[in-house]
Amino acid sequence: MTDFNVVLFDDFETLDAFGPAEMLGTLENEYAPGYFSCNGGIVTSTQGVPVQTRPLGQMPEGGVVLVPGGMGTRTLVHNNAFVAQLRAAAASAAYVLTVCTGSALLAKTGLLNGKRATSNKKAFAWVQSVNQDVRWVKKARWVADGNFYTSSGVSAGMDMALGFIADRHGLKSAQTVADLTEYVWNANSEADPFCTAL
Amino acid sequence: MTDFNVVLFDDFETLDAFGPAEMLGTLENEYAPGYFSCNGGIVTSTQGVPVQTRPLGQMPEGGVVLVPGGMGTRTLVHNNAFVAQLRAAAASAAYVLTVCTGSALLAKTGLLNGKRATSNKKAFAWVQSVNQDVRWVKKARWVADGNFYTSSGVSAGMDMALGFIADRHGLKSAQTVADLTEYVWNANSEADPFCTAL
Repeated sequence: MTDFNVVLFDDFETLDAFGPAEMLGTLENEYAPGYFSCNGGIVTSTQGVPVQTRPLGQMPEGGVVLVPGGMGTRTLVHNNAFVAQLRAAAASAAYVLTVCTGSALLAKTGLLNGKRATSNKKAFAWVQSVNQDVRWVKKARWVADGNFYTSSGVSAGMDMALGFIADRHGLKSAQTVADLTEYVWNANSEADPFCTAL
Repeated sequence: MTDFNVVLFDDFETLDAFGPAEMLGTLENEYAPGYFSCNGGIVTSTQGVPVQTRPLGQMPEGGVVLVPGGMGTRTLVHNNAFVAQLRAAAASAAYVLTVCTGSALLAKTGLLNGKRATSNKKAFAWVQSVNQDVRWVKKARWVADGNFYTSSGVSAGMDMALGFIADRHGLKSAQTVADLTEYVWNANSEADPFCTAL
């Protein structure tokens, strides 16, 4: 089992975290989930989901780290203690996946410098402004660069998670998860129906 | 604000609950979320999400009740105390929405008798066997009958939630939520791509 470590914070976007959690969690006996936040305890999403978390310092190394976006990221990018903790967690992970403005948090750690990445179309200008040394890709459902996967807004995280499963476990496994969850998978990372809607 | 009351239990399916929660929660200042379970406390989804809940007896009346599915439903249909609590909660709600095998739980209360309803395609035979006095519809992304909305498996809950928003708040509101969440909405309740895959 690979550790699947989700980084939460108050005002995270619900589906950013739980869409990918559904997909990776539906792949049986592959990922062991854990939920973490700066100091542990209950954190609550923008849509009001109260989740029990453990302190970030207890996150196991070598796993898959998921960073959701949401309104909470707007203040968190200025929280040096959080950014330092996230940097440590991401640097020691096998893979880091971000959804929506979660890529702004990861960008703030410097670990995305020189790498290709994407984010929510409605927050793109702000995300770019957080770190201009990232090679931001505007038109993409998700972008994989080395061990970093970054997705567009909210629902795109599910497409990215299935793309990640396809890369690591094969296309058939990804399609099986999509079928089990009755999800119409956008399997083409470059097909981004929400970029043109800007 | 309308109360949006989510009924959780151990081994609920993560996205069944949080897909609709994302959609209704993205409609600003309309729905006040609350999470409930039989006895309150932390309940954990099949995919490992630990959620803080209040006891079902504390659920406010007159709201929108959401019942997810998941493996936990297989034993819960035989839990008379839970079914009685769910019946009381659903009977006093303005609307009841179920996702996946959540419709089996609602069917067990008797409140769906004579009404049209659907469920997950992979669990359909079992769901039908729980209560044959329901008019089960096999090919449907979701079904609305009076104040009951029932959806197919997992991801179908998001399409149903947007359909519910369209019915209550107008098509434009539903499309705005879909755009904000970068979700490609299947807006046709009768278009069910997973029925033919049986």
